[in-house]
Amino acid sequence: MPRKVDHDERRRHIVGALLRIAGAQGLDAVSMREVAQEAGVSLGAVQHYFASKDAMLLYALEQWLSLDVHRSFAERIRARVAREPAATPLATLRAVAAEYLPHDDATSLEARVGLAFQSRAAVTPALAAALVLAYTGFVGTLRGILRHCGQPLDADTAAHELAALLDGLRHPVLIGALRYADALGIVDGHLARLLDHERRP
Amino acid sequence: MPRKVDHDERRRHIVGALLRIAGAQGLDAVSMREVAQEAGVSLGAVQHYFASKDAMLLYALEQWLSLDVHRSFAERIRARVAREPAATPLATLRAVAAEYLPHDDATSLEARVGLAFQSRAAVTPALAAALVLAYTGFVGTLRGILRHCGQPLDADTAAHELAALLDGLRHPVLIGALRYADALGIVDGHLARLLDHERRP
Repeated sequence: MPRKVDHDERRRHIVGALLRIAGAQGLDAVSMREVAQEAGVSLGAVQHYFASKDAMLLYALEQWLSLDVHRSFAERIRARVAREPAATPLATLRAVAAEYLPHDDATSLEARVGLAFQSRAAVTPALAAALVLAYTGFVGTLRGILRHCGQPLDADTAAHELAALLDGLRHPVLIGALRYADALGIVDGHLARLLDHERRP
Repeated sequence: MPRKVDHDERRRHIVGALLRIAGAQGLDAVSMREVAQEAGVSLGAVQHYFASKDAMLLYALEQWLSLDVHRSFAERIRARVAREPAATPLATLRAVAAEYLPHDDATSLEARVGLAFQSRAAVTPALAAALVLAYTGFVGTLRGILRHCGQPLDADTAAHELAALLDGLRHPVLIGALRYADALGIVDGHLARLLDHERRP
């Protein structure tokens, strides 16, 4: 009996190649031919798994969001929080910011890939739907942490605001218009004002 | 004597075609051939003015930033402030937010084109340099307004924070994850907290 081909593994391998190209050169540079070359497989193999470039991008976005981003991001935050003297909600929010903002090769690649997908999602409804889900998930995570801050704040609005602030800080850091430390300082000031303010009568 | 060809006018015409394609389909869809077709000129004419796609994109970004964005954005803000009962710095900041966030065809196109350039700039140093300038200009404008708020706040940090918040709110509005009115409400809350907080001793 022939060994069963692990199709999921093959798809993931192709998606890995796509993300490397997207991170280095943007999604413009992604074609099925380029991806096949980067993955070291034939164009036919890529076409076997994906009917079109758009189908490949959607699958890659969903894979990337569910696996790479979610898992590695959560792990990195846990590691950061574990190093904090007190695992308060504020410390967790700071850890989220510290990991979300680009500060090394891996997080810069993540931010570039994210931006590439955001840009393409703005003109591709299927990708937009996937990013709406991802955005809702991110805001939900932040809301959950903010609810435990022991402050009578509007956690939903605060979560949307923090998500936007973090997302909006990524680009200037990525292009060198703002230093990582200064971006983190802005988030710190924001959190201090938010929690301080809400604490007052 | 033959009539002098207005090269700037021709370049602007080509750039207009490029921005229409970028706004509708993203920068992926921008090729010199596509732009020539959209502009109704020959491929050779496009190649006469631009040595490469990258050169064309850089020129388009600079044109777009200096003309379209700056001029029309400033005009719209002035019109909005003129309708306000009191032309306070807070009213001006609200007008900036109201115009920056996508809420009609023109502002959605502007946000999509901006995102497309941000994404490409993250992997193209020449474009990044142009966007660093644009970012610095935007932050400078916000800082100038914040300095007149009559509050003892750190206008520079507040300007970076507001710029990031506005930029980060654009995408969820663009993909339908957040309503325009809710995004504006978040900015309002942010400004109220910022100014209220700084007013306290």
